[in-house]
Amino acid sequence: MLVLGTVALDTVETPFGRGKDLLGGSATFAAASASFFTPVKLVAIVGKDFPQSYLKFFQAHQINTQGLQIKTGKTFRWRGSYSYNLNCAQTLKTELNLLANFYPFLPPECQNEQFVFLANIDPDIQLETLKQLSHPKLIVTDTMNYWIEHKKKSLKKVIQKSDILVLNDAEAREFSQEANLLKAAKLFLALGPRLVIIKRGEYGCLLFSRTFSFSIPAYLIEAVLDPTGAGDSFAGGFLGYLASLSKISESAFKKAAALGTIMASYVVEDFSLNRLKKLTQQDIQGRFKDFQCLTRF
Amino acid sequence: MLVLGTVALDTVETPFGRGKDLLGGSATFAAASASFFTPVKLVAIVGKDFPQSYLKFFQAHQINTQGLQIKTGKTFRWRGSYSYNLNCAQTLKTELNLLANFYPFLPPECQNEQFVFLANIDPDIQLETLKQLSHPKLIVTDTMNYWIEHKKKSLKKVIQKSDILVLNDAEAREFSQEANLLKAAKLFLALGPRLVIIKRGEYGCLLFSRTFSFSIPAYLIEAVLDPTGAGDSFAGGFLGYLASLSKISESAFKKAAALGTIMASYVVEDFSLNRLKKLTQQDIQGRFKDFQCLTRF
Repeated sequence: MLVLGTVALDTVETPFGRGKDLLGGSATFAAASASFFTPVKLVAIVGKDFPQSYLKFFQAHQINTQGLQIKTGKTFRWRGSYSYNLNCAQTLKTELNLLANFYPFLPPECQNEQFVFLANIDPDIQLETLKQLSHPKLIVTDTMNYWIEHKKKSLKKVIQKSDILVLNDAEAREFSQEANLLKAAKLFLALGPRLVIIKRGEYGCLLFSRTFSFSIPAYLIEAVLDPTGAGDSFAGGFLGYLASLSKISESAFKKAAALGTIMASYVVEDFSLNRLKKLTQQDIQGRFKDFQCLTRF
Repeated sequence: MLVLGTVALDTVETPFGRGKDLLGGSATFAAASASFFTPVKLVAIVGKDFPQSYLKFFQAHQINTQGLQIKTGKTFRWRGSYSYNLNCAQTLKTELNLLANFYPFLPPECQNEQFVFLANIDPDIQLETLKQLSHPKLIVTDTMNYWIEHKKKSLKKVIQKSDILVLNDAEAREFSQEANLLKAAKLFLALGPRLVIIKRGEYGCLLFSRTFSFSIPAYLIEAVLDPTGAGDSFAGGFLGYLASLSKISESAFKKAAALGTIMASYVVEDFSLNRLKKLTQQDIQGRFKDFQCLTRF
């Protein structure tokens, strides 16, 4: 599976602590989460200031970094904070640095990937990535409010070329100009994707296709330390699981959403990706079974 | 099943319309919803101004109104509005009228009821109701922020005597002074109830007992016309279904929550209780099956 997006150094403050220059970025969370289900190749850019220990984290998760450009200059930095409403990050500062001139060159070994996650990044970069793929099978796209507001035309093109669109409720409403999420989803499906996933933070997410709808709550945990990357971890787990299958059905989408939810529930238990360092397949399977009990009636 | 609470004349404005002096009140929604599962007895008060057609609504649903006092004076009135965030009513005016001096006399035929829903009303009235019950089996209590702020001591007594507590997320946080709902639920369980249900509006609800947790999303509908009474309809359907069973198990609680959710989903499709007038058992069973598909993975 291929993951395009940002690799960042995050400075995050939550009611429960803070961390400086933590490993972050949309592609990082997605790739790390997906790596629990399938081999992952990363396409992103960082600077010479990017810590070796973070590169080792990718290695430890067998994430292929042939597509990770390491250039002279500074890594993309994000600084944000959360109040007790952990659903909503407040961005305090964004330093694009090398990201400002990033072109996503795909090494030959990346061009054949069939499962592709275009994590949140400039939609023009997402489009350039798509151009280099020889025979993609399932393209999943995420975005953010900034691109809706500043690059809606390009973003619309990406959505038209995507199989699955992932975005949060506020973004869905903003792009579609429709308050009701069911109606908003129909508008997105009319653009081309076969599935739209609307994330709702601590309330879980909704899946809409032309033939079914699916609603899944979040997995309940007692202590959310840092919600950064929850959505990307969800998407990474979601597509990582699908990429591991020989056939994709309606029930596969549902199980993928449950596993994505589980991955996100682990990530938010600690800052950055720290929780994933000691996460096992057994943990994931155990929580998946709990999750079924938590939701089945 | 016995339902204590308010019967009101509601004036409601939503983005999709408005209605004046509509049939409303916590007990009304709960009783009507429960009546689809079990015989219901209503304990409440109205004035001589209460429309005959509304009394006929109760009759049409075989709701026993021996405990409904009809006194000289005016019926309790509530006026509220909703913006596009349909989770949150704004109360514009409350006229207690006869409710200000209401004492809940239980006719003898009501005193033997085993399943009791104490819908939102002054907790002192809830306590007086409990005193008159000869052998209650399952007491479910709802409340609102006003009683947390003005009668917390009495409310705490009611909770201690209740088997099941139903309240929304903001109320749970306000009463417990705990932001995390899992932790808040533990505090409530420590007070006595065997089950705590935390409602989250359009996001569904959470059930917490000492032995299990359960999370259920709302049933997705395209057009919410008026969310008034959704929570009461949920609770009415929940307890109504339980009252119809010979034995109550963990899975019964889960199915009851699903049926309560279904009842609420119907109520919000129209103003007041209008949608229930043409609702059939077949509708409920059909939507229940859809709901299983919508949530199962």
